[in-house]
Amino acid sequence: MPRYAAGLQDVRDAQERIAPHAHVTPVMTSSTLDSLAGRSLSFKCENFQKVGAFKTRGACNAILNLSPEDAARGVVTHSSGNHAQAVARAAAIRGIDAHIVMPRTAPSVKRAAVEGYGAKVYPCEPNLTARQALADEAVQETGATLISPFDDPFIIAGQGTVALELIEQVDHRLDAIIAPIGGGGLMSGLCIAAKGVDANMRLFAAEPAGADDAARSMAAGRMIPQTSPDTIADGLLTSMGENTWPIVRDHVEQVITVTEVQIVSAMRLVWERMKIIIEPSSAVAVAAVLCDQFRAVSGLNHVGVVLTGGNVDLNKLPW
Amino acid sequence: MPRYAAGLQDVRDAQERIAPHAHVTPVMTSSTLDSLAGRSLSFKCENFQKVGAFKTRGACNAILNLSPEDAARGVVTHSSGNHAQAVARAAAIRGIDAHIVMPRTAPSVKRAAVEGYGAKVYPCEPNLTARQALADEAVQETGATLISPFDDPFIIAGQGTVALELIEQVDHRLDAIIAPIGGGGLMSGLCIAAKGVDANMRLFAAEPAGADDAARSMAAGRMIPQTSPDTIADGLLTSMGENTWPIVRDHVEQVITVTEVQIVSAMRLVWERMKIIIEPSSAVAVAAVLCDQFRAVSGLNHVGVVLTGGNVDLNKLPW
Repeated sequence: MPRYAAGLQDVRDAQERIAPHAHVTPVMTSSTLDSLAGRSLSFKCENFQKVGAFKTRGACNAILNLSPEDAARGVVTHSSGNHAQAVARAAAIRGIDAHIVMPRTAPSVKRAAVEGYGAKVYPCEPNLTARQALADEAVQETGATLISPFDDPFIIAGQGTVALELIEQVDHRLDAIIAPIGGGGLMSGLCIAAKGVDANMRLFAAEPAGADDAARSMAAGRMIPQTSPDTIADGLLTSMGENTWPIVRDHVEQVITVTEVQIVSAMRLVWERMKIIIEPSSAVAVAAVLCDQFRAVSGLNHVGVVLTGGNVDLNKLPW
Repeated sequence: MPRYAAGLQDVRDAQERIAPHAHVTPVMTSSTLDSLAGRSLSFKCENFQKVGAFKTRGACNAILNLSPEDAARGVVTHSSGNHAQAVARAAAIRGIDAHIVMPRTAPSVKRAAVEGYGAKVYPCEPNLTARQALADEAVQETGATLISPFDDPFIIAGQGTVALELIEQVDHRLDAIIAPIGGGGLMSGLCIAAKGVDANMRLFAAEPAGADDAARSMAAGRMIPQTSPDTIADGLLTSMGENTWPIVRDHVEQVITVTEVQIVSAMRLVWERMKIIIEPSSAVAVAAVLCDQFRAVSGLNHVGVVLTGGNVDLNKLPW
């Protein structure tokens, strides 16, 4: 048994640590979606989470866990999306400085949201090299701690709390959990937590065909980084990391890839039928449970589907 | 004490009658909306109701209550919106014919939804006279029972179940309930139910300035019908009826009117912050709790807000 970056006890600790600052999000069902999927689905609504995404969980866990000395020097991260807001909010809760490197191209509403939590935004060129360089610079200058978006034990443990809640909310009736995979922070946390409380739980990852590093990595048996991703699911562009990959490799049964058309169609279906707003990255998991490949998997009567977030620019809808 | 079309016991009977066929919809909260409103708000999410609107409740109650003889002859209604779907679905549950008069201009998706429940659609000219004439004709020809969209004791009692649920879900902590008013079926049902279980409950109605018959009727002390309504809130175009008006007159403390800009802004705010889809008619109540007039009402620490429905054409958003 390999030693992973985080274990079940870390997830349980995270659950206690973040409880005052994160919602226990509701679980929703839809008879329409059940019919289309051919089985019972329980949707874990992290779109209703604080800052509109599960990222709140990991960011709170990592930042609340910092020693007083480390916390006093603040935190740094680079993100164009939900992790930026989550770190900014968690830093505000802890009462410490947050330095957030964001691409110049990020929507002004996202920048405003981060600044609304009192964080300092550092605009950079919109590529990973520039982001990391500027984040490293901020760490050097301030002595602040870098809060990774996914490849960190406390982030992994924090995201894993989604599974602890979900499994309990549906009275341990789940056969499997499926969630979108990007850097693998959520997916690896779900694996650790779900397998920890139920060794028979089956884990599936959903991925855009336009950013299918997890599918290719699983097929190859070694981590293959994502290059030039191309998908509307802007939360799933990154490669896995050295902490998340081994957990995903050892626990995920299948990676289901879906097309852009399937993603947009699933997103619209959820808006129209479930009356809730999910972002494209969330729709990847919905598209996966509706596709033939997943419908053909046997033995899955009841599947938990993680709806990861609901932050969408209402002026730029994909239909 | 005047005798009204429905009383608390009718609402309790309705609750039992519709229980197998209608969701107990969740109640949601939002710290952002609370801040903007200056008080605690509990949102009753009828957008998550079957067919996407509270109309399911009244239609189920009225149709399940029909005698076997009446039921055998089927039901008729005229509606361009949620009531049409609700009647079609309730008739399908009862296993009887439904004849639905719809304006030719109704979106094809709404017509398809009604037909999807096995109902027969009768297209008519898009005005109330034509609708009523064709509905009367269908009644004459088939002997079917006309199911009014609002001015019927069983419809009123059915919609009133919203209040029974809501009050219980928030542990009787509400000082007031506010809901949009159109024909007054929902509003009068809420009044009967809420005042029935708590004589101190305060009731408020929210109305578009472009269809303000309730506000003008209350000011005049007599029912003034709505002529040429002009609002995006397409569920609130109708006048009150002889059954709903006396209940509204005697129980509603204030009618709050809001502008089209306020309605669209409130709708977008709920989509962005609460991540749920509500239709413009629902947004009227949200706009009302955020406006200065309502904020100035004293003694309201905790207000229940009925989000009436979530059926929106995603290709025609008002922003």
